[in-house]
Amino acid sequence: MGAITGHHHTGIQVTDLERSLRFYRDLLGLEVVHVWNRQAPYIEELLGYPGVDMHGVVMRMPNSDSVLEILEYRNVERQAIDPGTANPGTAHVAFRVDDCDAVYEELTRKGVKSVSEPVTPTIGPNKGGRTVLMLDPDGFRIELLQPPR
Amino acid sequence: MGAITGHHHTGIQVTDLERSLRFYRDLLGLEVVHVWNRQAPYIEELLGYPGVDMHGVVMRMPNSDSVLEILEYRNVERQAIDPGTANPGTAHVAFRVDDCDAVYEELTRKGVKSVSEPVTPTIGPNKGGRTVLMLDPDGFRIELLQPPR
Repeated sequence: MGAITGHHHTGIQVTDLERSLRFYRDLLGLEVVHVWNRQAPYIEELLGYPGVDMHGVVMRMPNSDSVLEILEYRNVERQAIDPGTANPGTAHVAFRVDDCDAVYEELTRKGVKSVSEPVTPTIGPNKGGRTVLMLDPDGFRIELLQPPR
Repeated sequence: MGAITGHHHTGIQVTDLERSLRFYRDLLGLEVVHVWNRQAPYIEELLGYPGVDMHGVVMRMPNSDSVLEILEYRNVERQAIDPGTANPGTAHVAFRVDDCDAVYEELTRKGVKSVSEPVTPTIGPNKGGRTVLMLDPDGFRIELLQPPR
């Protein structure tokens, strides 16, 4: 079919937009492109949530044409999922970093949790690099991946 | 901090890798870069799942430096989440398409479910374009976004 022409964005749905902004903007250092509270009938139809009050932030990912959306659905029923990555239907986002251990140590010092300490891939295309899964405020996994030198 | 230098990949965790491949490869037309069953102690530590048997596929997203990972965790306990996007901890992936309605109609004819029919954004940067949320085999939302002309 070949009808897909690119990656526009990855979106992450969160409990508390302000809390998540402190993580993605203040701790990870991503740049906010714009903050919005978009309200229009097409949004409710698109998302399948009548009456939803959608609050969102679009963030730039360095050296990428696609963007990251952080979204909070207000005014609708919602239930936090179990974000363990074995669970089908979950996702994760991986960012490139120059120094995985330095970022891990700074985030850890600032209270961010992780699945493990950084590990060294022993096989595959990232062999010899470093990587770790950090938890965003909802437990969503953010991978920090330092490619091999 | 500015320590993040790029978007490496977005990963989606699935129930059945073969079933999801039929969706992402055969229906969406994404190109498979490689298929792997990577087994090494660092994987179990990184993911936090001792004994996990990880099966994965890396797929190219057109006109993008980042890739899409489709992952099935075998040999560990797992429970499908409720993929409704109001639920904190869920995510979605948006692809650019040239003709949202044509892709929607073809996917629908082939049995793919969607949240709604394509809608026309009336406000915001995509005003005048077309967009729809399709459901992957686990109910994970894939947005097809046709930018305004």
